[in-house]
Parts: sequence; structure tokens; C-alpha cells
Amino acid sequence: MELAQTRPSDILVTYRIETAGSTEALAAKVASDQSTGTFVDLPGETPELKARAAARVVAFEKLEPIEAPSLPTAGRFFNRAETTIAYPLEAVGTDLSALTTVALGGVWSIKEFTGLRVVGLQLPAAFEGVYPGPQFGIDGSRRLTGVYDRPIIGTIVKPALGLTPQETATVVGELVASGVDFIKDDEKLMSPPYSALEARVRAIMPIVRDEEQRTGKKVMYAFGISDIDPDEMVRKHDMVVREGGNAAVININSIGMGAFLFLRRRSSLALHAHRNGWDLITRHPGLGFDFSVYQQLWRLLGVDQFQINGIRAKYWEPDDSFVQSFHDLRKPIFQDADRPLPVVCSGQWGGQAPETYRRTGESVDHLYLCGGGVVSHPGGPAAGVKAVRAAWDAAVAGIDLHEYAKSHPELAQALAKFGSKTPASEGK
Amino acid sequence: MELAQTRPSDILVTYRIETAGSTEALAAKVASDQSTGTFVDLPGETPELKARAAARVVAFEKLEPIEAPSLPTAGRFFNRAETTIAYPLEAVGTDLSALTTVALGGVWSIKEFTGLRVVGLQLPAAFEGVYPGPQFGIDGSRRLTGVYDRPIIGTIVKPALGLTPQETATVVGELVASGVDFIKDDEKLMSPPYSALEARVRAIMPIVRDEEQRTGKKVMYAFGISDIDPDEMVRKHDMVVREGGNAAVININSIGMGAFLFLRRRSSLALHAHRNGWDLITRHPGLGFDFSVYQQLWRLLGVDQFQINGIRAKYWEPDDSFVQSFHDLRKPIFQDADRPLPVVCSGQWGGQAPETYRRTGESVDHLYLCGGGVVSHPGGPAAGVKAVRAAWDAAVAGIDLHEYAKSHPELAQALAKFGSKTPASEGK
Repeated sequence: MELAQTRPSDILVTYRIETAGSTEALAAKVASDQSTGTFVDLPGETPELKARAAARVVAFEKLEPIEAPSLPTAGRFFNRAETTIAYPLEAVGTDLSALTTVALGGVWSIKEFTGLRVVGLQLPAAFEGVYPGPQFGIDGSRRLTGVYDRPIIGTIVKPALGLTPQETATVVGELVASGVDFIKDDEKLMSPPYSALEARVRAIMPIVRDEEQRTGKKVMYAFGISDIDPDEMVRKHDMVVREGGNAAVININSIGMGAFLFLRRRSSLALHAHRNGWDLITRHPGLGFDFSVYQQLWRLLGVDQFQINGIRAKYWEPDDSFVQSFHDLRKPIFQDADRPLPVVCSGQWGGQAPETYRRTGESVDHLYLCGGGVVSHPGGPAAGVKAVRAAWDAAVAGIDLHEYAKSHPELAQALAKFGSKTPASEGK
Repeated sequence: MELAQTRPSDILVTYRIETAGSTEALAAKVASDQSTGTFVDLPGETPELKARAAARVVAFEKLEPIEAPSLPTAGRFFNRAETTIAYPLEAVGTDLSALTTVALGGVWSIKEFTGLRVVGLQLPAAFEGVYPGPQFGIDGSRRLTGVYDRPIIGTIVKPALGLTPQETATVVGELVASGVDFIKDDEKLMSPPYSALEARVRAIMPIVRDEEQRTGKKVMYAFGISDIDPDEMVRKHDMVVREGGNAAVININSIGMGAFLFLRRRSSLALHAHRNGWDLITRHPGLGFDFSVYQQLWRLLGVDQFQINGIRAKYWEPDDSFVQSFHDLRKPIFQDADRPLPVVCSGQWGGQAPETYRRTGESVDHLYLCGGGVVSHPGGPAAGVKAVRAAWDAAVAGIDLHEYAKSHPELAQALAKFGSKTPASEGK
């Protein structure tokens, strides 16, 4: 098909499209529908207007047809293509809600699709500096935890739900004493009646502060301050700051982009993003978004730490997808400072360290988050942290975990307990 | 399987689940994962704690297995069931971001699913009065437009994108003179460089005010004030109010739930919701949300007017789905006042009036929104409005449209132009 020229100011969105009809016609329809088109011809739709507002197809590549449509439809073969549409900056501006409305929203309403996935987003330079971006990111997270040259090791208060603030404080006391660098509320723990956030913060922060006094090491504790009401969320944020806290878990999809930006503009906490609900819009390979697209929006808005699962996670996500997500986060959008700290998580206990290290480009710039993997270690959380530290030392040194475990009993215990549930990698 | 008792305070969420394995085991896993569970046993998970926080399976019904999984997976048969999980109010509270996180978010991460759709949500009385709900809704929209006993007739400025504020004002002048009750910006028009919102408002509102002076009828104009920055969105809202406007189009999914609530708490405009992007989370029948669930959240937050497509819409949505959505909006959550005005739209021109009337319980309590159907009428917008009014008069009187068109030439013109694109119903 005839392709238009790209202009440097264009917003480029790449879609993988699927239809029982013509992929060329459908690509043209996306460009038309998402800019000036309607279902009938219009007076006033002049060439000048079209030049100003019209989206254009700038790349198009046919893919192999498939036999099963992503959206259930009768038929035998479904044509596929990958196409890039250029949206004029003049037509969209730099507002992210305009971008999602025009290019990442209404497209799924188009009848002719049997599948549609957004696989690429390239923003022009005009977006640089419009949004705050990460306030802490990799460097800030390292500075606040005092951890350099190895992954920041984190854990989660367990049981996730049901503990009273005082019961939580007891668990946190043990976790703080374990030498872990980072502790967080489970994302499902926000401010339920049995554990109001303020009571929890007041119960936990004295323990964090006392330990800092004693040892000079201040654990980063991320409190679940998400709230559907942005005003209330900021009040929660301010209360955590007053009590000396330095991080918060935010359920980004549950509060939405606007509320997150509202918080970020007022925040002095490291914002740790949990993307609960994300699976719905990425898990079907023919529908939704690649993480490479989704994460750009949240990074611009200011996520500091981004949960992305890990090797052999307990959820559905395949290892390749996690590895790709890690690399997505490592790639600057405009500059290095817009990179958040990747949070490697879900079913982690140290056994996945060698493969994680190897497949992420031998990077240790991440938060390695172990929930049950630390707190359910047979020797307790302190032994759990030692086991995870040992696993990472071994991974970086290129030593097989079972070999290293001979001189590191906590790692040996972890291998014995968790190794069968999530088999250790070969370690090389 | 063994079912738990329901308590009056429970939050009840109904899921249609699909798996290659046991649906009973999966229902139990949802209840466990979304409350206290992790991948290993935990110290401290006492019976008292479980009683406080544990979600329970309270209903379970096997459905016919299917041969094709919603999420592509190898296999021959996939088991399905519909199950209701009770989430204790004590564990979740009334915060909607907690509700989505716990019950409507992380569930899609569970590995064993090949499909998962939320088909029911029943909130306990504790949610009543927590959120502001619609400020105008059906009654307020009628009061502001002065339209009673028939649908409010609306149109959209076209071309959707590309007009300068002055060009827009020229179009609006013609629309205002047409006698239409409601005009809106296309949802994709927010505040792009070529048509900054403030300039557009300042160009349009004098026309609306002048017409009101002349005729006593004030058209409701809904400006696209969506902005990813809630502070900025409220500034835009305030500016529209200062200029005498009384409505706004909000792209609810693009700004997110928190930002919408932030606006609603400060709003004196009728908030007209466009759900762009919604299709992605409802179009696959085995994944996502039924509208009956989704709309409850937005109604609690305060949507006044809710776009839900219409009969023979130009998008993918089948007529039955629209009709169900209409009935969903008509059903009180807690009281009549929490019902927004349904907005019947997409490809509408009057020809669908008889079927719409018949299938929505002979209701005229809606905004009937015709974009091209009004502005592209061969006789111009005033004739377009007359045609739509005539179509609704005929529908309510039970007169066949072609019959009625004999004495209503604008309707005859509309039938001639649009009737072939979206065939008129039988009219009975």
C-alpha cells in the first residue's frame, strides 16, 4: 500500500492488526477513524484540515495469516499485518490522556478487527520534560537504601492480609532485624478497617527508626497508600512522610493515570508501582498492549520502581516476557534518568538469580523481591535474606548454586525447601 | 463443591472461569490468592486471621466445556463454571481502588485460567453514600436542557478534528440554530495546539449565550476537558463554568478513576462519559468485564451521562449488548438518583428510534446522540434535528417511519440518505 512520510514531530504507534478482510483497508481505516473520519462524508473536511489533523499510515508489513482469530469469529483464515500510524503532534498534543484516547483507546471499537495489539510507541522530542518522570528511580533507590553493586533485596509482609497493625509490627520487627533492604505491604493491603494505614504506619515506623538508630541502616518500607480519592492519597502520603517513611506501593491501574500524576507532583516518596490488572490487557497475544508501550506512559508520569515478575514466576507470565520487560525498562525514553528501578518478583527466592543475571545483561540494577521466599525460609527471615544474598553473590561470580551452598548453609536450606517448587537454573 | 454462607456485609463478585483443569480448584484458588494466600505455607496464618480476611466461594455452577480456549493454549477441552466469591467488607473496605485491586485486578494473573470474565458485582449497603454519584443524571440533564417527555437530541461537531476554534464556532452557530438540545466536542478533541480548549470555549460560548437570550433555550454544550493532570482538568472545568457552560465530555478510561472522582468532587458541570478503550476489556466474551460491573464503579464516582452505543452502531458492539447496557444503567445500585442518563449513540440518525424505543422498555429517558446523522442531513443540521424528532415522535406513537415520512419531508430525506447504510427497523 502507499505509505506516507514520517515527520520528526509525529507520534508513531505500531499496531499488529488481524481481520477477516483486507489488512491494508483496515490500516487506512484506523488512520481515518482515529482522526477526522465519521460514517458519512462531511462538509468542511478540506485538504488543509486533513493536512493538520489526519493520521497517516507510514509503515505496513504483511504477516502470516492465522487460522484462529483472537476474538471469536466464524471464518477460516484471518489476515495479519504490522502497521505504523503517524499521529500529528499538532492533532494530539502532549497530553497523555489525549494520546490514549486517540491512539490507544478507541481503536478497539473498530468492527472489522478480529485482533489488535499495540506493539510499539515512539514519542517525539516534544514530550521530553513535559512530565515529571521518576524522582528516585535507580540512583535514588540505591541512595535511600545504601545498597550499591548488588541487587536491593526486598520482602513482603506475610500473611498478605488479615494482620492487625500490632501483629504486622511484630512481623516487621523480625524482617527489619533480618538485614533485608526493602519491605513492602502486599499490594492488596491498603487501608482496610482491620488495619487502617495510619495505625499501621504508627506501629511500624518506630521499629524502622529504632533499627536505623542502632545500625545506621534504614530499611525502605513501602506502605500501601493507594486510594481512589487523590486528595486522600496525598494525605496518606504526607502522613507517611511525617513518620519518616520513604516509599509507597501504588496500584497504578486501580487509581489510574491522572491520580498517579497528581500524587507524583506532590510526592517525596519512592513510588513503587504494582500493575495489578495489567494481565487482562496483555495476556492474550492478539489483543491489548505490549509492556514496551504501557511502561512508557507510567515512566513519564513518574514510577520509581516497577514490578515486572521474574524468572519462573508463580503467575502466567513466561520468562521471555519478563526478560523483555526488564530490557524495556533499561532503555531510556529520552534520557537515563527516566529509567525506573526494575522490581523482579513473584515466586522469587534466590534460585532464579543465575538465570536472571545472565538473561538481563548481567545487571544487578534491580530490586529483587522475595515474599514467601524470605519469610518462609526454614531458618527464618534473616536466614532467608542470607540465602538470597548468597545466591546473587554466586550468580555474579558465576559459581553454581549447589556448589556455593556447600559453604553457605542458608542457601542450602533454601535449595532444599524451594528448589523443587521452582527448580534452580543450571547456574552457568 | 462446598459452599460458604453469604453475609449481608459481603462484597459479591461473580466470575465466569475457564481452565484446562478443575474449575472447583480454580474457584478455591481465586478465593485464596485474592486474600491471604501465597505460594508457601506461612507462620501466623491463624484461623482468626482467616475468618477476618479470607474470601469464600459462595456460589458455583458448572457450565458446558468449550473446545477453544479464550487465551490461546494447547488442549482439547476447557472446563467452565460461573462462581461467586464473597470478599469480606472487613478485608476490603469501601475504597474502590482496593476493590479493583483485590477482586477485579490481580485475578487475571492466575496461571491456570484460560479465560476469566467478571459477570457480576453486588456491593453491600456500606458503599451507599460513600461516593458522590451523579450530580445531574436524568433529572438534572432534563432540567438543564428543558427537555421533558422525549429523548434529549444531541449532535457532535464534525469534522471531529482539525477545525480551528473560529471554524468550530461557525459550525456551532449552525448547530445551535438547528434547535438541537445538546452539542458536544468529539471525544478525541481535547486541547490540541490548533484548538486550545480556552480559545474554543471563548469562541463557542457567546454563540450559546446569544441564542439563549434570543430564544430562551440554552443548548447544553459538552466541552472536552479531559486532561491527564487533575489540577489542570479542574482549571479547565472552572473556565468552562466561568464562561457559562454546563457540561463536559470526560474520557473516563484515559484519565482513570481517581482523577474522575477528583473532578466530580469539584464539579458543577454535567459529566458526559466517553468510555474509549472500554472495548478492549469487554469485546472478547471470555475475558474482561461485563458492562453491568464496569458501569457500577463509574456511577458511584459520579458519571451523569453515559455513552453506550445504540441499535446498529457503527462499531463492533451487537444490539443485544447495547440493550443490556441500557437496562444496566436503568437499574438503581442503591437508589434512583444513582442512575445516569444513558447516551444512545454511534451511527444514529433516527432510523433506529422504533427499535430502540421498543427494546429499551419504551423509555424516552436518554440522550439520543447523532453525529453525522444530524450534520450530514441533506437539508442541513436543522433538517437533521427535525428528522430525528419526527422519527422519535413516530416511534413513540407506534407509526411506521416510512408512513410518518409522508408528512415529514426531513424524515423522508433522512430515510433516503441513511436508510441504506443502517437499514431502518420494521418500526413496529
